[in-house]
Amino acid sequence: MSATHPTPSDGASLSYEQAGVNYELIDPLKVAAQRAAAATGVHLAAHGFQEVAASRGESAYVVDVGPFYLASIVECLGSKALVADEMRALTGQSYYGAIAQDTLAMAINDLITVGATPLVVQAYWAAGGSEWFADAQRAGALVDGWKRACDACGVAWGGGETPALVGIVADGRIDLAASCTGIVSPKQRLSLGERLGPGDAIVLLESSGIHANGLSLARKLVERLPQGYLTPVEPGLSYGDALLAPTLLYSPVTEALFKAGITPHYAANITGHGWRKLLRHPARHTYRIHQVPPVPPVLKFIQQHARHDDREAYSTLNMGAGFALFVAADDAERTVAVAKACGVKAWAAGHVEPGLKKLVIEPLGIEFGDDALQLR
Amino acid sequence: MSATHPTPSDGASLSYEQAGVNYELIDPLKVAAQRAAAATGVHLAAHGFQEVAASRGESAYVVDVGPFYLASIVECLGSKALVADEMRALTGQSYYGAIAQDTLAMAINDLITVGATPLVVQAYWAAGGSEWFADAQRAGALVDGWKRACDACGVAWGGGETPALVGIVADGRIDLAASCTGIVSPKQRLSLGERLGPGDAIVLLESSGIHANGLSLARKLVERLPQGYLTPVEPGLSYGDALLAPTLLYSPVTEALFKAGITPHYAANITGHGWRKLLRHPARHTYRIHQVPPVPPVLKFIQQHARHDDREAYSTLNMGAGFALFVAADDAERTVAVAKACGVKAWAAGHVEPGLKKLVIEPLGIEFGDDALQLR
Repeated sequence: MSATHPTPSDGASLSYEQAGVNYELIDPLKVAAQRAAAATGVHLAAHGFQEVAASRGESAYVVDVGPFYLASIVECLGSKALVADEMRALTGQSYYGAIAQDTLAMAINDLITVGATPLVVQAYWAAGGSEWFADAQRAGALVDGWKRACDACGVAWGGGETPALVGIVADGRIDLAASCTGIVSPKQRLSLGERLGPGDAIVLLESSGIHANGLSLARKLVERLPQGYLTPVEPGLSYGDALLAPTLLYSPVTEALFKAGITPHYAANITGHGWRKLLRHPARHTYRIHQVPPVPPVLKFIQQHARHDDREAYSTLNMGAGFALFVAADDAERTVAVAKACGVKAWAAGHVEPGLKKLVIEPLGIEFGDDALQLR
Repeated sequence: MSATHPTPSDGASLSYEQAGVNYELIDPLKVAAQRAAAATGVHLAAHGFQEVAASRGESAYVVDVGPFYLASIVECLGSKALVADEMRALTGQSYYGAIAQDTLAMAINDLITVGATPLVVQAYWAAGGSEWFADAQRAGALVDGWKRACDACGVAWGGGETPALVGIVADGRIDLAASCTGIVSPKQRLSLGERLGPGDAIVLLESSGIHANGLSLARKLVERLPQGYLTPVEPGLSYGDALLAPTLLYSPVTEALFKAGITPHYAANITGHGWRKLLRHPARHTYRIHQVPPVPPVLKFIQQHARHDDREAYSTLNMGAGFALFVAADDAERTVAVAKACGVKAWAAGHVEPGLKKLVIEPLGIEFGDDALQLR
């Protein structure tokens, strides 16, 4: 279960809880579901297979099916569709091509963390009524954006569901989600962290902006802005347009790394919890960052208007780093080069060292301890 | 895309369109999505794989990954959760264990039609707010029911998403969906209909009631009932309780058939469109039914109160047959016996013969022609 917990915040700043997400209410169910789910892994033995237990609690579930591993996941877009709807009303443009990419990125960028090649996606588009689908411009943008993202990642779009759920999905809205299935092949590509250790380099890949996490906060903030979503974050770029920059798709990078002979020891998709996701792996190491990527204007803007200090900003938002690869030190510069060749900026931004489990962001003087992230 | 079209109805009866689903609005997007999706199958070649083209338009998408086929799907429960919510208010009971099984059945019963063994499911539970999850009785029933259904089908519950989607999912509601991944192994189990032909027997498996299709109609009907959901459909059984009988899970039957050495030539999950789903395969054969299973009381009740003739009832509801297996004539009686050994009643109810593409339900004097079902 991947519902996740930001830490509470206080003071005059705008916290995640104020923005409407209360994880304390979700957590008991999540824990019960995780326990029940874990107890079902034994069923695979009857089919001659077994789960890869270390994938429980990671971003995708992995099963050993003999010649390779099978990985699968379901992920939803979350509330970013509400921003697209608001901006549509303000500008007349459809942003559904962009949020189609976001939705696929949520699934694909998680799936690849385990070393999987994404093969098939399924679309789940649940609208609040049949009328949703009658808007040809918006529907066309959704289909086109979904296909372009599939093309970019080399995945087959297998099909999906387009239900009209009157009374369940809110009128005029749509709940966008994607499932993704892939394989880890050869099996040596499995990157659940067994090889992660001191000396490894931490390579950060750029983000395009907020991606699809932190949107509850970003939407709440609009109430404080003089021109709402049309408030410029920099000349010629509105807050709404900046928020709707689509999430980068990182599977072209991970596939190119494989072709280049580089197998990451671990990978983290930097989504909810921001940089605390660098602490995702349960192993006890210190993660030391000596270089922070440039912060996208929209994230600087959010930090400033939400009055977050760096600690809170980096604990909530991706702050310019959308994905982290943990690779052998010798592979660090080549990893950066491979990413750049895919059109994705990258930085050999830090390394793993022996010590207490913590994340140290040296340029900002921030530390997050072992208690900063509770995902399991 | 598996949104599907009931035929229009007219007169004093209560039609599917009157019940709130307008497929004419959904169809253009569905067709555009199907075309775009079909164009992405070529991507698999770059990974050394290929799609099984015949699975486009079938209930699950199939990819040839070498040693076996990979099958995947995403499916949602639809509006049955609204019945559970209404009945909770009336009786104080939680029906979420039952609808958890329904949700998994929607995915698993579709996946097995291609000959796949379901291996992994992912849960997608999108609530209208964090508060939804705070109801421990309901949340516990959902988790327990989900796990029991996984246990019954021998699938591993890999994980999932439990987002709180304020403003997208209606307040107090939940959108339940499941993705499922399986394999067809050995590859000879693939049942996309290549071997379907005249002489084959049609074995029907019993349903438990309405399952999870036709609920819009069933809910609309409540307005006509004197005691609403508490109106008895038979002594001691309310309409609401009868509607909430969980969908039967058919994968234990298909797995037992494999162990018994029986490979169906084709299979159809009888969901939306009722018995017209027997016409699902594109091949041009006549499907002749000589025996109809007993109709569950709740479906008789709906037919009577919606004033549907047999033609309309069998074209919309499962009418007692939840799943159809097309097997070699010599395997028919053994197929029935294997299903019964799994606790599922079954009937060698008809056969395939040469002729125009149509379904003939002899005992009822009904025919559905080739134009009765347009899924592709």
